Amino acid sequence: MPQAPPAGSQAMMRRDRASASLGMIVHRNEPGHSVVSMVVRDDMLNGFDVTHGGFVFALADTAFAIACNDSHHVTLAAGADITFLKPTTSGQNLTATALLRVKSGRSGIYDVRVSVDGDAVGEDVTVAEFRGRSRTTNLPVPDRTHL
Amino acid sequence: MPQAPPAGSQAMMRRDRASASLGMIVHRNEPGHSVVSMVVRDDMLNGFDVTHGGFVFALADTAFAIACNDSHHVTLAAGADITFLKPTTSGQNLTATALLRVKSGRSGIYDVRVSVDGDAVGEDVTVAEFRGRSRTTNLPVPDRTHL
Amino acid sequence: MPQAPPAGSQAMMRRDRASASLGMIVHRNEPGHSVVSMVVRDDMLNGFDVTHGGFVFALADTAFAIACNDSHHVTLAAGADITFLKPTTSGQNLTATALLRVKSGRSGIYDVRVSVDGDAVGEDVTVAEFRGRSRTTNLPVPDRTHL
Amino acid sequence: MPQAPPAGSQAMMRRDRASASLGMIVHRNEPGHSVVSMVVRDDMLNGFDVTHGGFVFALADTAFAIACNDSHHVTLAAGADITFLKPTTSGQNLTATALLRVKSGRSGIYDVRVSVDGDAVGEDVTVAEFRGRSRTTNLPVPDRTHL
Repeated sequence: MPQAPPAGSQAMMRRDRASASLGMIVHRNEPGHSVVSMVVRDDMLNGFDVTHGGFVFALADTAFAIACNDSHHVTLAAGADITFLKPTTSGQNLTATALLRVKSGRSGIYDVRVSVDGDAVGEDVTVAEFRGRSRTTNLPVPDRTHL
Repeated sequence: MPQAPPAGSQAMMRRDRASASLGMIVHRNEPGHSVVSMVVRDDMLNGFDVTHGGFVFALADTAFAIACNDSHHVTLAAGADITFLKPTTSGQNLTATALLRVKSGRSGIYDVRVSVDGDAVGEDVTVAEFRGRSRTTNLPVPDRTHL
Repeated sequence: MPQAPPAGSQAMMRRDRASASLGMIVHRNEPGHSVVSMVVRDDMLNGFDVTHGGFVFALADTAFAIACNDSHHVTLAAGADITFLKPTTSGQNLTATALLRVKSGRSGIYDVRVSVDGDAVGEDVTVAEFRGRSRTTNLPVPDRTHL
Repeated sequence: MPQAPPAGSQAMMRRDRASASLGMIVHRNEPGHSVVSMVVRDDMLNGFDVTHGGFVFALADTAFAIACNDSHHVTLAAGADITFLKPTTSGQNLTATALLRVKSGRSGIYDVRVSVDGDAVGEDVTVAEFRGRSRTTNLPVPDRTHL
């Protein structure tokens, strides 16, 4: 049975207007593990008719934020590295799967694979790999639920 | 006198709907050097009322794309690393300044500083540092100007 | 049954004086998977009596080179990112475990975990995480076996 | 007139056996700026007769450590990214030049260019680019000068 979503990331996602405005859907929200998807829109394409790297990064970054906010203290993205492997375009459904790699003190590393549905049923193709570096703060997760 | 914008990046930016939809303004477009700004909107905030990392990355990524597309061949982002130094929020004006660090064969490295206006006139504060890795292809830059 | 070591990485390791001079031992050599260990020596310590980052990187880099040289063509390290999580010192045994993350065309990503034996039997502690970016060339692996 | 070397990095380098064993020479040691060189030896070559990435990284890492240890508190390498641009080999003189990019609270970013002497007098060629991420601790720099 999947674990209940941590209170921290639930409160965070209720308030995340950026992810909502990009049409992201959270499929999985567990400590150290999340799955988020997004359909690429025309207004996410760059000058080469390819999904702008910022939107691929944004999807991975949201999955990262969910996976690392597994406590009642705010965990921030200190940084991230992304490698772009394949271009995608409008209408394609991107899925970001984040997994905790290691936690050490206040620091954490999370790996996020961004994939697109392949031609065959059940097949997917990796389009980007993202590695996020997190840092847990002393700040409590805000709990305003009415925005 | 500043150099004329390279044909490649001009054509690219005319067609870049992503950067346009985020309200980006290109202030400088020279080979190996670009400046792009964007005002943070409410719909760019994450669950902590802070600019979502994806939008900070997107601004830097656009500046990177302009600086590296200085020829008639398409140059792609192979990857990038970003370090987030300070949070920003709605209404703040972010500026990304991209500079070529080194080119070696088909590979290039570009550094992009993202800053926000400080309290004093003329002062700015670095909020993120981005290092982009580019790869130049054999593809000609598309020249469709009517989208 | 483990697969036979690929001819490419075997020839490469026979000739690798750097890894030999650092006392590295190859425990596993399979396509996309390698394990290499090294005992930290006094002459690998920096000014804080801690293993110099260059030697931690070198161990991970050798594991990466073995895991990615799984064909008869030379695969080169295009770059790598390393996060240092815990300091180690003289006399400790470091183990680097490299795994293929993804291959896409000529590009590959390999993750290498560097760990040290923990206090309890069978326990180990991650001291660094390394992510290598590879690029496969057209060059055949050199086959000189007499150096 | 160049500034006097900071006490912190001077004490650190006097004790750095790793950098000494690799034959590194410190040419410049100022807050936020250092220059270190090293001649590649046969025992630094990998299986392709090319300088092992670990030694290129080690040179850059020492330059980074000098540039960031500009106070009486220990500053540690939290991580680094390196891009390898050109191979080098035995007998070549490598020079690493580190410069502070930005400091923000306890975090810092330092860029290190590793170059090799070119064919023409005064010319050099970039062989690697390194970006180090530092974190300043509360620990005082150790001051044992007799090792």
